[in-house]
Amino acid sequence: MTTTRQLKLGANLNGIGNSIAFWRHPEVPINASVSLDFYRKQAKIAERGKFDLIFIADGLYINEKSNPHFLNRFEPLTLLSALAAVTEHIGLVGTLSSSYSEPFTVARQFASIDQLSGGRAGWNVVTSPLEGSALNFGKGEHPKHALRYEIAEEHVEVVKGLWDSWEDDAFIGDKINGVFFDPSKLHTLHHEGKHFSVQGPLNVARSRQGYPVIFQAGSSESGKELAAKTADAIYSAPESIEEAKAFYQDVKARAAAYGRNPEELLIFPGIGPIVGETAEEAERKYEEIAGLVSIEHALNYLGRYFEHYDFSQFPLDEPFPEIGELGSNSFRSTTDKIKQEAREQGLTLRQVALRASTPRTAFIGTPETIADLIQQWFEEGAADGFNVRTVVPNGLVDFVDLVVPILQQRGLYRTEYESETLRGNLGISVPRNRYVWSA
Amino acid sequence: MTTTRQLKLGANLNGIGNSIAFWRHPEVPINASVSLDFYRKQAKIAERGKFDLIFIADGLYINEKSNPHFLNRFEPLTLLSALAAVTEHIGLVGTLSSSYSEPFTVARQFASIDQLSGGRAGWNVVTSPLEGSALNFGKGEHPKHALRYEIAEEHVEVVKGLWDSWEDDAFIGDKINGVFFDPSKLHTLHHEGKHFSVQGPLNVARSRQGYPVIFQAGSSESGKELAAKTADAIYSAPESIEEAKAFYQDVKARAAAYGRNPEELLIFPGIGPIVGETAEEAERKYEEIAGLVSIEHALNYLGRYFEHYDFSQFPLDEPFPEIGELGSNSFRSTTDKIKQEAREQGLTLRQVALRASTPRTAFIGTPETIADLIQQWFEEGAADGFNVRTVVPNGLVDFVDLVVPILQQRGLYRTEYESETLRGNLGISVPRNRYVWSA
Repeated sequence: MTTTRQLKLGANLNGIGNSIAFWRHPEVPINASVSLDFYRKQAKIAERGKFDLIFIADGLYINEKSNPHFLNRFEPLTLLSALAAVTEHIGLVGTLSSSYSEPFTVARQFASIDQLSGGRAGWNVVTSPLEGSALNFGKGEHPKHALRYEIAEEHVEVVKGLWDSWEDDAFIGDKINGVFFDPSKLHTLHHEGKHFSVQGPLNVARSRQGYPVIFQAGSSESGKELAAKTADAIYSAPESIEEAKAFYQDVKARAAAYGRNPEELLIFPGIGPIVGETAEEAERKYEEIAGLVSIEHALNYLGRYFEHYDFSQFPLDEPFPEIGELGSNSFRSTTDKIKQEAREQGLTLRQVALRASTPRTAFIGTPETIADLIQQWFEEGAADGFNVRTVVPNGLVDFVDLVVPILQQRGLYRTEYESETLRGNLGISVPRNRYVWSA
Repeated sequence: MTTTRQLKLGANLNGIGNSIAFWRHPEVPINASVSLDFYRKQAKIAERGKFDLIFIADGLYINEKSNPHFLNRFEPLTLLSALAAVTEHIGLVGTLSSSYSEPFTVARQFASIDQLSGGRAGWNVVTSPLEGSALNFGKGEHPKHALRYEIAEEHVEVVKGLWDSWEDDAFIGDKINGVFFDPSKLHTLHHEGKHFSVQGPLNVARSRQGYPVIFQAGSSESGKELAAKTADAIYSAPESIEEAKAFYQDVKARAAAYGRNPEELLIFPGIGPIVGETAEEAERKYEEIAGLVSIEHALNYLGRYFEHYDFSQFPLDEPFPEIGELGSNSFRSTTDKIKQEAREQGLTLRQVALRASTPRTAFIGTPETIADLIQQWFEEGAADGFNVRTVVPNGLVDFVDLVVPILQQRGLYRTEYESETLRGNLGISVPRNRYVWSA
């Protein structure tokens, strides 16, 4: 048996939400975003495909222009907990904002999911890009980008500290002598920092995987730094293999600079595979979805990245308007990319809005084409795995039934789960407890 | 068919935790507090017994003297979400503190559980009695009792307001015309209060039961007032039927004074039934559990009610010491009761500590004895239902298999669930949406 590097896969599940008009497709269940039955079935499909994990994204602010999926959806931690009870192997990763949460509560809820699932939990740390989030938490001004990342770094440090409260062998359970635990293996954090003051200890023990797996999703400078210092995995959104390679090298180098093994920081570009029997059939599937978006909705959607800017004031078929620095704080990397692409390719407002509202990745075509691209990205240092979004009805089933077997035949991807924990399947180490010095 | 008033039952599930030495019993699984399998089985037993609900209590501060169950247990909302996926009928009620949480997050997570379970969620609003809780949330001083209840009242009001964000028929889902929802049926709360400032709207719709059911558990003046104003149900801990009747009348009268129908505020005294084939067998079961507690643990446990006071400095077999007003802020009703009982019955410190560490209720004896007591309390206006704790191994199974059938034969208790929602089974109304004025 050879142990070659293996591809990792995550399924980004989001009800009716992959594009703003996806819900209009006749085959999409209209209540998918609040249907446990829908998520259970999707999770089972991903588990049948031996996916490492499912991923539930999140947001903390809506208004009437928000993406339909965002208006009425499950909160990620409660949904993942429910799915923990009806799945066996797959990892359960959810977004939670470090800007609008208490480290003690975050540490507890993720540790609890980790115990419920036998070591399959993961936390995607985000800092909340939407300015409006502050309005729902009575916090006054939404913290600026750099401050949010400063808060995030301290938040994650506190959460990890709380997760170490109990050494793995602290609970003795000696019924005869009445010794439930060893007090020398209970540790109180006493954190006093700039943004948080948290005593501890936490009232949940570590799971089999030590800590829930830490994901990070921002690709700004601060985002990459945070990930290099504290994350086990990164979600990214490159538009090309070149961009993906540059990101990959950049982040792995940063991890190494912090004294970490770069192989323990996994990079998951997002892809929206569309599988067809022929390239033309796959293309038709994309066009069918893109064609469901009205131009009004597309403009609203675009505006969301620019602090809910009203683009309807501009002519649709003239070049994308000059709007200055708008949007620079929240979705900086996305808005920079949109403006750059519009400028370089001379796109009209209509074109920009439609592309933004129904994003497409390169992963469109026959199963072989998609498997080839995956293999190329994986082997050429652009990805350790992929975060697979459903962008057409039955997209996940098609991927599992048609693309996964090819990846398995090529020896790139598991045919059985290697481990009972998410960390084990991802091939990353169980973190040492900071209070334990043995080898 | 007659529709007589029906008894309600809840099962208080807490792993190894009903008395401080319960875990030492050979039949108690040592990891029960972090075993999904344990909770799933208990929930299924309660559902087999047609219980209205299961209840998961909580706390936000531990130290090495805490009850073993408190040291390492599931966080309630994640546990209830997991149980939502593996149960069909039973209500899912959990404790969450209004002193250390954000109304937006609380509204979302409970609404999400309510959607996951098809309308079976309930929130037990507590204000966190433990002073140490503040240390885990960087909030400076733990708010005093009256302030905590002032915060709680505003918190619950905000949460209910957020739950009304969407009218029940807001989501149209017209695929042909691309109309996902009716914006006139989306409402933004714009709450600006003394303790919270929350804009809304919430990103989860109401479930079939309107709001999750609101429970309240404090029995202080402020607690009774909060319940009378805002709760659907109250957990209480009376020591006798007289005390239970007085509490019942008091709270029902307060609800009426606020213009509410007193039948829509249900009162659930806590009981710890111990079933035996004979009275003697039941008594032996209690003694077996009480005998597992060491005196050191009993003193620690007693101290917890008195701000972690060190009782080991006093002689064990002399009258309960005079300790002044200690304990007046946090567990006032409990500590008053302990002091009064000690004084009236001339108890020694040892006796007080052992009674406190292994509490007993009147509900001990044969199935008929326990059914008689339940019927008496129910019919004489001491209870609308009971919160049933497991205090001996297999206590819940015994109750379901031996006591429930008697209650059913007497026509006091359901043989099938009446409704698909918790509110429906409890027989309380779906709250009107504050933005909807139709009849």
